[in-house]
Amino acid sequence: MKIVIDAMGGDYSPKAHVAGAMAAERAFDDVEIILAGHEEQINEHLTKAKRISVLHTDEKIEPEDTPTKAVRKKKNASMVLALREVREGRADACISSGNTGALMTAGLLHVGRIEGIERPALAPMLPTLDGEGFLLLDVGANVDSKAEHLLQNAFMGSIYMEMVKKVNRPRVGLVNIGTEEGKGNELTKEAYELLEQAPLHFVGNVEARDLLEGVCDVAVSDGFSGNLILKSIEGTAGTLFSLLKKELTSTWSNKLAAGILRSSFSNIRDKMSYSHYGGAGLFGLNAPVIKAHGSSDHTAVFHAIRQARQMVNEQVTDIMKKEVKHQGEWKNG
Amino acid sequence: MKIVIDAMGGDYSPKAHVAGAMAAERAFDDVEIILAGHEEQINEHLTKAKRISVLHTDEKIEPEDTPTKAVRKKKNASMVLALREVREGRADACISSGNTGALMTAGLLHVGRIEGIERPALAPMLPTLDGEGFLLLDVGANVDSKAEHLLQNAFMGSIYMEMVKKVNRPRVGLVNIGTEEGKGNELTKEAYELLEQAPLHFVGNVEARDLLEGVCDVAVSDGFSGNLILKSIEGTAGTLFSLLKKELTSTWSNKLAAGILRSSFSNIRDKMSYSHYGGAGLFGLNAPVIKAHGSSDHTAVFHAIRQARQMVNEQVTDIMKKEVKHQGEWKNG
Repeated sequence: MKIVIDAMGGDYSPKAHVAGAMAAERAFDDVEIILAGHEEQINEHLTKAKRISVLHTDEKIEPEDTPTKAVRKKKNASMVLALREVREGRADACISSGNTGALMTAGLLHVGRIEGIERPALAPMLPTLDGEGFLLLDVGANVDSKAEHLLQNAFMGSIYMEMVKKVNRPRVGLVNIGTEEGKGNELTKEAYELLEQAPLHFVGNVEARDLLEGVCDVAVSDGFSGNLILKSIEGTAGTLFSLLKKELTSTWSNKLAAGILRSSFSNIRDKMSYSHYGGAGLFGLNAPVIKAHGSSDHTAVFHAIRQARQMVNEQVTDIMKKEVKHQGEWKNG
Repeated sequence: MKIVIDAMGGDYSPKAHVAGAMAAERAFDDVEIILAGHEEQINEHLTKAKRISVLHTDEKIEPEDTPTKAVRKKKNASMVLALREVREGRADACISSGNTGALMTAGLLHVGRIEGIERPALAPMLPTLDGEGFLLLDVGANVDSKAEHLLQNAFMGSIYMEMVKKVNRPRVGLVNIGTEEGKGNELTKEAYELLEQAPLHFVGNVEARDLLEGVCDVAVSDGFSGNLILKSIEGTAGTLFSLLKKELTSTWSNKLAAGILRSSFSNIRDKMSYSHYGGAGLFGLNAPVIKAHGSSDHTAVFHAIRQARQMVNEQVTDIMKKEVKHQGEWKNG
């Protein structure tokens, strides 16, 4: 299979992307990688690669670019070229750690939606205490969601967790402000009814407070709410780590004690870190498109490639297509 | 002034409530306290109090009670009695750490709304890195908010921060999924326009990620989103603390090092803790009604009393009333 990587997006591009690609080449015999980006800059880091090729371009989309404008104007941006490889059948999946909005816009435009999917969803894995993680969707691809969209997210999320993460009967939770039935706003009340009737392993409402404890495998929400949750978790963890750092370096004895605890702190950091979970899938498109974190290092890029490979191998997109079609039939009697 | 406390709600009632009341009696000469609850149980903890009286009742609302049903049926519950003291002018403010939904329902029913306020808002203070804290409203009193409600929240929040927390020109932020104008869902786009035109110190959109960094003094959101943010922050902090605890007690050397760092860890815990910020105001009612955390200890109860006293002294409710009236005039030209 061929996986194309936008090598120019993200804080550590293209170095992290090249290193991640090289690690993946060593690890997976069945993967060929195309790096879309500036050839000279890529070649600075690329050594001894048999199954890695470069698709050169000078252009790239910047983090601060307005998504729709950038996608329209920068027709040869590395991200756009990468997605075009997928559309034209020269690659099976695409990874980018660039501008999220641009990736969603360009993904819709160049890779296209699965028939029957009204709105794609952005779906990151988040950490849980037991290390298994949970999938949160949507985190912002679709900010004015309808109940129907939440149902589609539940199906797509379940398929992903089952096929890629090998979770048997993934537990689907509806993110809400209380666990009792009947809680929430108009949207969640309506979505609850749909989810309850659907052929899914629906475990009811789940509270944001309990997500990191692992109360469900798939947490369904509208894109606005999901984005707030994602960023609240990130912000709180970041704030706590910086408080910790400040306290632990405040005196000599603290520094000494902190030295003893170094590996424990890095255990905690690892548990809360995204990088080994891969990137966020943009579910509902005609091929696997993965948004890796902007601050992805080579490990994160490697895991995103592993994730894309798994999605291709398990034919996740095809199964989603069949499920959406089946869902349409099921709803119509 | 007289402050009435529902002494039977919360995990540590009535002990924490009695102890908090006694501490407040010592600290504030101008405060008389009424403890509504089971006299015998209260008297077990009450000693040498001159300005503390007990309003006896056998009945109380349980955490698991359905709010509307409980308020209707348990007419002599400690919470209901406490609110009735306010309505009938025998107390100036009320504090409860009991069932949040019941307090909102009973507050509306017995204390009533400020004229012109469509929906009251629940407004807790949350911690920031600099220790100043920010006010988040609404966190769940009003789950299907309109832009107009968000504007009213902004006014009420600003008044509170100015009068009670002595913040000069409180910075009002609209919680959103990006900082640029034009970001967000239909609700936030509409609210942005109202806030921009209002006589407030509006600093634009703020992201959930940055709230604990102190980007604003008043964070305005719909009740559903605010509740998710509050619980995501609580959940993440809780998860991190339990990870930390597990790691730090895993070996003898870790335990030793952790012993040296004990005061640092408790500094961090204190910074992230609610208790010294008081409780969450239920803004938009005809008198100060404060929801203290369910797990409030005597310190949290004491700070809630201090907060209620400040609200009464600064005539916060009257100023909110005037502002809402003025707002009506301002909108009508």
